[in-house]
Amino acid sequence: MADIQNGDSCSSSPLELFERVTAQGEKVRSLKAGKASTDEIDAAVKLLLSLKVTYKTATGQDYKAGSPPVDFSPVSNNGPTTTQDEDFVDPWTVQTASAKGVDYDKLIVRFGSSKIDKELINRIERVTGKTPHHFLRRGIFFSHRDMNQILDAYENKKHFYLYTGRGPSSEAMHLGHLIPFIFTKWLQEIFNVPLVIQLTDDEKYLWKDLTIEKAYDYAIENAKDIIACGFDINKTFIFSDLDYLGMSSGYYKNVVKVQKHVTFNQVKGIFGFTDSDCIGKISFPAIQAAPSFSSSFPQIFKDKKDIQCLIPCAIDQDPYFRMTRDVAPRIGYLKPALLHSVFFPALQGAQTKMSASDPNSSIFLTDTPKQIKTKINKHAFSGGKDTIEEHRKYGGNCEVDVSYMYLTFFLEDDDKLEQMKQAYSSGALLTGELKKVLIETLQPLIAAHQQRRKQITDEMVKQFMTPRKLAFDF
Amino acid sequence: MADIQNGDSCSSSPLELFERVTAQGEKVRSLKAGKASTDEIDAAVKLLLSLKVTYKTATGQDYKAGSPPVDFSPVSNNGPTTTQDEDFVDPWTVQTASAKGVDYDKLIVRFGSSKIDKELINRIERVTGKTPHHFLRRGIFFSHRDMNQILDAYENKKHFYLYTGRGPSSEAMHLGHLIPFIFTKWLQEIFNVPLVIQLTDDEKYLWKDLTIEKAYDYAIENAKDIIACGFDINKTFIFSDLDYLGMSSGYYKNVVKVQKHVTFNQVKGIFGFTDSDCIGKISFPAIQAAPSFSSSFPQIFKDKKDIQCLIPCAIDQDPYFRMTRDVAPRIGYLKPALLHSVFFPALQGAQTKMSASDPNSSIFLTDTPKQIKTKINKHAFSGGKDTIEEHRKYGGNCEVDVSYMYLTFFLEDDDKLEQMKQAYSSGALLTGELKKVLIETLQPLIAAHQQRRKQITDEMVKQFMTPRKLAFDF
Repeated sequence: MADIQNGDSCSSSPLELFERVTAQGEKVRSLKAGKASTDEIDAAVKLLLSLKVTYKTATGQDYKAGSPPVDFSPVSNNGPTTTQDEDFVDPWTVQTASAKGVDYDKLIVRFGSSKIDKELINRIERVTGKTPHHFLRRGIFFSHRDMNQILDAYENKKHFYLYTGRGPSSEAMHLGHLIPFIFTKWLQEIFNVPLVIQLTDDEKYLWKDLTIEKAYDYAIENAKDIIACGFDINKTFIFSDLDYLGMSSGYYKNVVKVQKHVTFNQVKGIFGFTDSDCIGKISFPAIQAAPSFSSSFPQIFKDKKDIQCLIPCAIDQDPYFRMTRDVAPRIGYLKPALLHSVFFPALQGAQTKMSASDPNSSIFLTDTPKQIKTKINKHAFSGGKDTIEEHRKYGGNCEVDVSYMYLTFFLEDDDKLEQMKQAYSSGALLTGELKKVLIETLQPLIAAHQQRRKQITDEMVKQFMTPRKLAFDF
Repeated sequence: MADIQNGDSCSSSPLELFERVTAQGEKVRSLKAGKASTDEIDAAVKLLLSLKVTYKTATGQDYKAGSPPVDFSPVSNNGPTTTQDEDFVDPWTVQTASAKGVDYDKLIVRFGSSKIDKELINRIERVTGKTPHHFLRRGIFFSHRDMNQILDAYENKKHFYLYTGRGPSSEAMHLGHLIPFIFTKWLQEIFNVPLVIQLTDDEKYLWKDLTIEKAYDYAIENAKDIIACGFDINKTFIFSDLDYLGMSSGYYKNVVKVQKHVTFNQVKGIFGFTDSDCIGKISFPAIQAAPSFSSSFPQIFKDKKDIQCLIPCAIDQDPYFRMTRDVAPRIGYLKPALLHSVFFPALQGAQTKMSASDPNSSIFLTDTPKQIKTKINKHAFSGGKDTIEEHRKYGGNCEVDVSYMYLTFFLEDDDKLEQMKQAYSSGALLTGELKKVLIETLQPLIAAHQQRRKQITDEMVKQFMTPRKLAFDF
């Protein structure tokens, strides 16, 4: 609320300061180039120096041209500079050299988010009276921003809403795509709040070699898989950007508000865009930002502009929302809170990337029981030893074993999971046996999903995607 | 039609080629920096050289980094480089050192448009059977792109539509703002075609220190003045961007299509944007481009994507439509045709700028008869001589006399205008007498406008701005 009351006057974010120093630097250069009077140049230099001091005070960093404040940079610089010790994470690329996957503790420090610690998990349990989801207990959702604010609001019977999304780049969704939706569904149930789900078909059209029509088709197909996760139609609004932007009296206005308060320098710093990128990509971050503000959904929230938003997403989406949080107070809105998940590893190991074009890199929601079995047996990277003898003697390594990692996501029984870990680490359980447990966990899970998806009619999709009031009064 | 059939395959526009050379140059640099193999670098350099040859063949110009092909550059470079001999024209700035105003013949050469010559004017008369508007006869609309295509279409009973617009930066519109609307109304009447009028309230929000609400209010107030020009409600759709983007199933999709096919390098070259500009400005050109395509108005044109568009506008808006025409064939659309007007001079002379913040720089549509008289007598730059004696002896200079210029816009009687010119040039007519003629021309014209504007109810504005079918069947 304080943020909202500050409104536009609260305008000295690190990014804004960075911008002002940059602009003043340019002014000094152009004065010098234009052979302005010494007095004029001196005055401009003086202002430049004082802005640099302000910048350092606010950020704790020296101003460096071209490098926005650390909280707003991608995790490492763009291009081929990633060293063996450094993970690279942005919305399009996740790179790590470690078979254990990205170092998430380091990521928290670099992104400036907060770790989801025991204390926060306990508070969620206390406040909701529900056992925390195993994604929380097992550190799969491991980082957050302002989750305590959300819990405060909940305790004070104040409303908030959930926002998550998906970029529909193909018809085929895989297991990893389910993670945010499974968790969001749980959040919706325990908190009983409205949920909006964005399908960024415009983004996919801009980034991929797709027609508008194809991108929209993918959005509809993906919506079916999302609905099959079991969302409550009375509490959930799913939207395609291509569609909803032309149907909402609030969305575009918020997009333009964000677009007015973010410069090309900033998106260059945050997302690594270049001068050769199309203007659609450059302005897209505002499209992903705007649903963080309740006024983008007047059909749900009426004229309420101060309903806070909680965004569960994979950590690679955080750059969008760091930008959103920076802009929010400057346009009179609340900053969205966030819950970040780890990445879902590829079958070949946590340091490789799942790819929709390589069907063997993950298990798809359309895979048959047989395909699931074959993929896991043939492709799931094993932390076991080369021979049975060695394995029995030294045990397997759960930290790099993809079958074990997958079980942490999908085997809900804590005791059984712990048992697997012990047995595999000690060598009592062989890789083939561990894989069998995973196969038997995933086969019924995927089959059940397929069963539910079959029930989803076009009519249901249309209902979920119709802008309408949900089962909440605002 | 040929353009449409070529669709996406027709992709080697000068801008595209420029982009490809630029991208390849970046690739070479990054290969070298990344210490790639000699073979790889050699192959990339070879491709770069061949792309440069293709570029030169297509454009007749050497590739120069950072300088897009000439047809796509602003009239001169940005910043304070305009010399005394060079006019500067872009959508935000019109600068000339000459009291006669911008050199429009030079502008035609630099913009690569075509002069509206006697032959074209005769053809318009022949085809429509109507006397050409005095704006055509007197060279006020002086330049065009593809107007002959429009006349071909008209002769072949094929449909086209008109698109014009206004940036609502304040409530107060002045005389100059009427020019495109007066002419568009005439075009609509003689051709009997649908007309769409864009109010770029989003642009004004992005560029000015305005709230969204204020920009929208200005749009509504300006709509009243536009309606008062006498447009036919059954044939005219007026829209605010902030409103209509959230109401149209076609507009946003076309915006994204344009945004995908224009890079930051291109808008930098065309509009002079910099890295410090907000991403809203950078992507805005697509918002002004999209109404050039009939599929942005499905309520009017149903599913017709090939209704050609004719845009009457002041020549400073041409950069938007040069960009639009470059993109159109690449997204399967027809290029819009254009009719360009000269600028309406400020009272102080053709080399100064009219400014909404200086009430004495122009005559506003809200001015009283007395204000009109005072402004013209006090501020209209005179081409007369310093003393009556000298004036009688040497005569006045119509080429720089603002009262005479205004009469060319608003005194419809050709004979009377010619008479004024002779009498003023010979010295028979004094400045005060010429001003009196102008005052007596404008007072009733403005009064009649105010009378009509008073009749415009909110309900009528709402009707004009409601997306709907017009009195044409598609």
